[in-house]
Amino acid sequence: MIQSKNRQWRLASRPTGMVEDANFQWVEEPIPTLDADGQVLVRVLYVSIDPTQRGWMARDSYLPAVRIGDVMRSFAVGEVVDSRHPDFAKGDVVRGMFGWQDYCVADATRPGAVSKVPPGVPIPLVMSALGMTGLTAYFGLLDVGRPREGETVVVSGAAGATGSVVGQIAKIKGCRAIGIAGGADKCAWVVREAGFDACIDYKSENVQARLGELCPEGIDIYFDNVGGDILDAALARLAMRGRVVLCGAISQYNAEGVPPGPKNYLNLLGKRGRMEGFIILDYLPRAAEGTKELAAWVMAGKIKDRVDVQEGLENAPSALRRLFSGENVGKQLVKIA
Amino acid sequence: MIQSKNRQWRLASRPTGMVEDANFQWVEEPIPTLDADGQVLVRVLYVSIDPTQRGWMARDSYLPAVRIGDVMRSFAVGEVVDSRHPDFAKGDVVRGMFGWQDYCVADATRPGAVSKVPPGVPIPLVMSALGMTGLTAYFGLLDVGRPREGETVVVSGAAGATGSVVGQIAKIKGCRAIGIAGGADKCAWVVREAGFDACIDYKSENVQARLGELCPEGIDIYFDNVGGDILDAALARLAMRGRVVLCGAISQYNAEGVPPGPKNYLNLLGKRGRMEGFIILDYLPRAAEGTKELAAWVMAGKIKDRVDVQEGLENAPSALRRLFSGENVGKQLVKIA
Repeated sequence: MIQSKNRQWRLASRPTGMVEDANFQWVEEPIPTLDADGQVLVRVLYVSIDPTQRGWMARDSYLPAVRIGDVMRSFAVGEVVDSRHPDFAKGDVVRGMFGWQDYCVADATRPGAVSKVPPGVPIPLVMSALGMTGLTAYFGLLDVGRPREGETVVVSGAAGATGSVVGQIAKIKGCRAIGIAGGADKCAWVVREAGFDACIDYKSENVQARLGELCPEGIDIYFDNVGGDILDAALARLAMRGRVVLCGAISQYNAEGVPPGPKNYLNLLGKRGRMEGFIILDYLPRAAEGTKELAAWVMAGKIKDRVDVQEGLENAPSALRRLFSGENVGKQLVKIA
Repeated sequence: MIQSKNRQWRLASRPTGMVEDANFQWVEEPIPTLDADGQVLVRVLYVSIDPTQRGWMARDSYLPAVRIGDVMRSFAVGEVVDSRHPDFAKGDVVRGMFGWQDYCVADATRPGAVSKVPPGVPIPLVMSALGMTGLTAYFGLLDVGRPREGETVVVSGAAGATGSVVGQIAKIKGCRAIGIAGGADKCAWVVREAGFDACIDYKSENVQARLGELCPEGIDIYFDNVGGDILDAALARLAMRGRVVLCGAISQYNAEGVPPGPKNYLNLLGKRGRMEGFIILDYLPRAAEGTKELAAWVMAGKIKDRVDVQEGLENAPSALRRLFSGENVGKQLVKIA
């Protein structure tokens, strides 16, 4: 359905605790028009829902916080409906930070602001394994974690968009992959479909004890998407010269105040370990390299992609909450047109 | 004074909280004799007192815990008084893990167990800037921290054996060096004698606020000897791609139970930071390389060495407590003969 207005979710207030509908304001405006050369008008088709958006709502971090009153920031894929940029024509499918809205005027002269989606690739795939999520898994595991054949890689959020790809790349690289996820269904998917060697259900199992059983020689790489007690359990089981790749800490994002840190961090000393953070935006200049390899793996059936599509822009705030309640399996998207 | 017996401090119990005299047992035995080829008998002259000894008393870590009833483990320097090894002769001054005792039978066939001290070098210097402590500073800063000219290096325990050398090497490498130490006297020494650019007195100043003032562009390398709140303050001020070198956590060693972790660890994510631990024992194969450079700096007056010598083996346990109360300035030694 093509909208006759530009519906938007704007940031109304900064969250304290869990994200609420009241943190957003629903606004309907006329569809914008182009007023400068270099611009394109994009009709947004899908918006991406990511844990890091909670941080963008709350405070300045690796990106400035979304300002109160601004459209909620989001990766998105859309279709060009008007263009004053020679590289983009009506009908092109493009991606960029178009936000939670039906229409976005984007300045296509800014490097990376608007880029074309290769024709023939399903949009959900472009937004998951072949998008920012897949690249996060790719560069985080390979560039920060630096796995070697035969090593043991443990991934939290293993049924999630990034974690599921991390484990599959670990397997491709000849590592053992152990997932941690919440619930029997997710764990079953992680093992049977995504091909991990095992998956620990943190809701019903003692994570630290199970890590001890499943990783008798310790954890060479722990790819952390969740923080909290699970990070501590992994630190306690670190192998000599183990690496902790800090990708996120979803269990902590809705905490009020600053939650406790990883009390087992000193194991980094005894084990000569390394804990290192990264932000995928730094790797965008190398995106082509990662996307090419990821695409080959997806085509060869070595990476299975799973997306969780909610329908309707009005459901974007509740879709964001799904990440924190763990209701989603795989990449969370909202289809808006 | 040459002892007619072998006086020893043996481990009597594992510490909970602060190390106590009751954790050790004073034993007097006959002076041992050699009973196998390859052995040397060493009369111990100085024993080294190090924060890590608290860990050796308590639990297995990068080395097995000292067993209850064994002589307390310690680096030491002594004089060979008898030898059944062709490389060592009576009168040689040697170093090794001789422990808190007057006499040690050492197996000189084990690589690194006994090594000669270069003639003419003062023994305290061999046990501080030109010993394990200097090497800890050298490899920790240069190999783990990897400073670049113009960067800002912050060091806690800056008046201590390792910290004072870290800051001086940082200066040699063209970095700004900011110390953190406890008390005005220590801070004055760190700046005036050791040549740091500034030193924060954590006992009377707000460390995080002062770090903000002194490091307006953030901390490129934080060399941590103390852990706790100071680690959190440094993490809060980390520069982009900042490195945290984990050398120790003296503020935490006497805690009962596991103390809280660094709550600001997630700044490693936003700042693409790296926190990495190391153990100096891993670098012993490269000791000659480090010692050579350190010796040249000491000879050139670029590294000032400070040692705090307590007299008498009977005072070894109280000397160890001095590290935790912060009474020592510079390298803590006990002279026993």
